[in-house]
Amino acid sequence: MGEFDLIERFFKRKSAATRYSIAPTATDSVALGIGDDCALIQPAPGQQLAVSSDMLVEGRHFFADVDPAALGHKALAVNLSDLAAMGAEPLAFTLALALPPARAADAAWLQAFSDGLLQLAAAHRCPLIGGDTTAGPLNLCITILGQVPAAQALRRDGARAGDDLWVSGTLGGARLALEALQGLRTLPPGMLAAARQRLERPTPRVALGLALRGIASSAIDLSDGLLGDVGHVLAASRAGATIDTSIASLLIAVGEDTTLASAVFDTKTALTLTLAGGDDYELAFTAPPAARAAVEHAGAQAATRVTRIGRIEAAPGLRLIDGAGRAVEGDFRSFDHFA
Amino acid sequence: MGEFDLIERFFKRKSAATRYSIAPTATDSVALGIGDDCALIQPAPGQQLAVSSDMLVEGRHFFADVDPAALGHKALAVNLSDLAAMGAEPLAFTLALALPPARAADAAWLQAFSDGLLQLAAAHRCPLIGGDTTAGPLNLCITILGQVPAAQALRRDGARAGDDLWVSGTLGGARLALEALQGLRTLPPGMLAAARQRLERPTPRVALGLALRGIASSAIDLSDGLLGDVGHVLAASRAGATIDTSIASLLIAVGEDTTLASAVFDTKTALTLTLAGGDDYELAFTAPPAARAAVEHAGAQAATRVTRIGRIEAAPGLRLIDGAGRAVEGDFRSFDHFA
Repeated sequence: MGEFDLIERFFKRKSAATRYSIAPTATDSVALGIGDDCALIQPAPGQQLAVSSDMLVEGRHFFADVDPAALGHKALAVNLSDLAAMGAEPLAFTLALALPPARAADAAWLQAFSDGLLQLAAAHRCPLIGGDTTAGPLNLCITILGQVPAAQALRRDGARAGDDLWVSGTLGGARLALEALQGLRTLPPGMLAAARQRLERPTPRVALGLALRGIASSAIDLSDGLLGDVGHVLAASRAGATIDTSIASLLIAVGEDTTLASAVFDTKTALTLTLAGGDDYELAFTAPPAARAAVEHAGAQAATRVTRIGRIEAAPGLRLIDGAGRAVEGDFRSFDHFA
Repeated sequence: MGEFDLIERFFKRKSAATRYSIAPTATDSVALGIGDDCALIQPAPGQQLAVSSDMLVEGRHFFADVDPAALGHKALAVNLSDLAAMGAEPLAFTLALALPPARAADAAWLQAFSDGLLQLAAAHRCPLIGGDTTAGPLNLCITILGQVPAAQALRRDGARAGDDLWVSGTLGGARLALEALQGLRTLPPGMLAAARQRLERPTPRVALGLALRGIASSAIDLSDGLLGDVGHVLAASRAGATIDTSIASLLIAVGEDTTLASAVFDTKTALTLTLAGGDDYELAFTAPPAARAAVEHAGAQAATRVTRIGRIEAAPGLRLIDGAGRAVEGDFRSFDHFA
C-alpha cells in the first residue's frame, strides 16, 4: 500500500463523511478538503480563527499496544479540548502522521485508528481536511481550526481578583489509570475501567466552552495538571489564587461516583492525583461571583459538572488550604516533557 | 531547561519579531500569538483560509547531522511552498516539535534551528503563533495558514486541454545533492555546493504563486518529482499531458547555469533527475496559450524563471517526447514514502 492509497483508503473526508453521516451543513465552512496543496476554509463573517497543534509520540503520550481506536479518539480529543478552552466552535483539522513501515502495512490498525478519529470528528462536525503521511517513528500531529466571534474568546489573561475558580468534570482519573497500567498501583477492576476511559478516551468540553462565552473571564484546559495549568492562567492574568483542597480532593474520577474515591484514597494521594495528575482535558475557568448562577446554567446546558474550587486574588502565587482554611503543604508538580 | 523555558527562549514570537524586525503591519492578522490554548487569526474580509501541514522526520527527510539553520529554513520553506502552489499569501504558522533529550539540551542547535526558521518567517511576514514541544525521536510538524480571495485559489483541478504546462526555476538539483551526499555520485565542488543549496535551502515560490492568480488555471508544488506531481494535477483535472523532455532535460539546477548540466549529464541521467527527482519545491502550473505573455510577466515580477515544457490534452496519461516529437520510454518514478 503506497502513501496515496493509504490516505485515500483510510482518511479521505468524503468516505469519512458518508461513513459517519457528517451532515453537509457541518462542512459548509470547508471550501476544499483533502487532495490539494492546501485545504481552503471559509470562516463565518466576524469570526476569528482559533488554531492549535498537538503532537503525540509513541512511548511518551501513549503505549505501543494502545487500542488504535482509542488513540485516534484521543489524538483529536486533546485538540478539541484546546478549542473548548478558547470557547471556539470546531471547524476542521489536519493530521500529519509518521508511521513505521509495519504500521503502515497494518490495515486493521489503520482502520481502527481512523474509525476512532473520524467518529469523534463526526460527533463534533469537524472534518479532516488535509495533512501529511510519512514513514518514521510513530508520531501524530493534529492541527485544529475553530471559530469564535472577535473579542469573545476565553483567554488565559482575563482572570481578575475576586473571581471564582471553577473546574469541569472530575480530575485525576487519567493519572490513576496511568499509574495502574505502569504497575505502580492496583485498582478494583471497575475503578480501573472507569479511570482508563478517562486516560484513553477523554471527553473534550467543547459544549461547555461555548456555553461559557460571555460568562467566564478566563479558561484553560487541563493537560499537564491543575496546579501547573492554573499557574499559566495566573501568570497571564498577573494574579494569584487560593484553592480549597477539601473540595479539590473529592474530584477524582472513578466512574461518576466521586465519594467512592475519597473512601479509597488517603488525602495526600487524592491531592497528588487531582492537583498534579495530567491528561484530564477538563476546563479550569474563572468567573465573577455574580455569574455563579450563569456558570451553573452553562454546566447544565452542556450536561457537564462544574465545581467551584477556589478564588482569584491580587497577591501572586498559588495557595492551597484545607476545609478549615489552614495552609496545605506539599510538592505537587505538573508534567514537564523535559523535566 | 524545561518545556516552557525552551519555548520562551527560542520560539516566542515577540523576541523573534524583534530579532528579525517583523514589521507590526505583518502581524495585523494575528490577534493572539504563542501562549494560550489556541492562537487567534483574523483573515481579511472576503478571504478564504489556506491550510497545509507537513511533517519532517530525521533520517527520512533530513540527515541527523544537517545544519540546524538549514533545517529550520527547510521546514518552513516546504510549507510556504504549499501556500505558493495555491496562490495564497502567508499569514502565520504553528510548529510542533519532538526532540530527543540531548537535542532539547543543546542550546546552540536550538538557536541555529530557530534562527533559520524565524529568518525565513520574517522574510515572508509569517509569524510563529503556537504549537507544541515534546520529547521523542526528532520530528518537526509545521502547519501553515495563508489567505486567498474566495474563488482565486490555484487548485489542482483547473487544467484544461490546450493549456500550456509550465515549471518555475530549475529541477533536479535537490536529488543531485542527495545522491552526492549518499556517496552515489561525485560532483565538482561548485556544482555540489549549488545543488546542496537546492536540497537544504529551497526557495518557496510565494511571489510567483501570488503573481499567477487569475492567470494560471492550475498549480502544484514539486515535492515528490515532476511526473508524479503533474500526475496529481492530471488526475484532479481529468486530463492528460505531453512533456517535451528536450526542454525538461535542460532544467537541472547547477547554480544558475542550466546549459552546464546538459554538458555534464547524459540524457537518461538528466531526465531521471528532472522528471523524478523530488524536493525541488518549484511550481508546476498550467495556463491557456493566450496567457503566455501574462505568465512571462508574472515570472519577471516574481524574479523567477518560468519555462513552458508541455501541453495539457484531453487524452488521459502522461506522454514524454523528445525534441523531434518521438516518444521517450523510461521508468521515472516519483517518491512514495511507503513504496
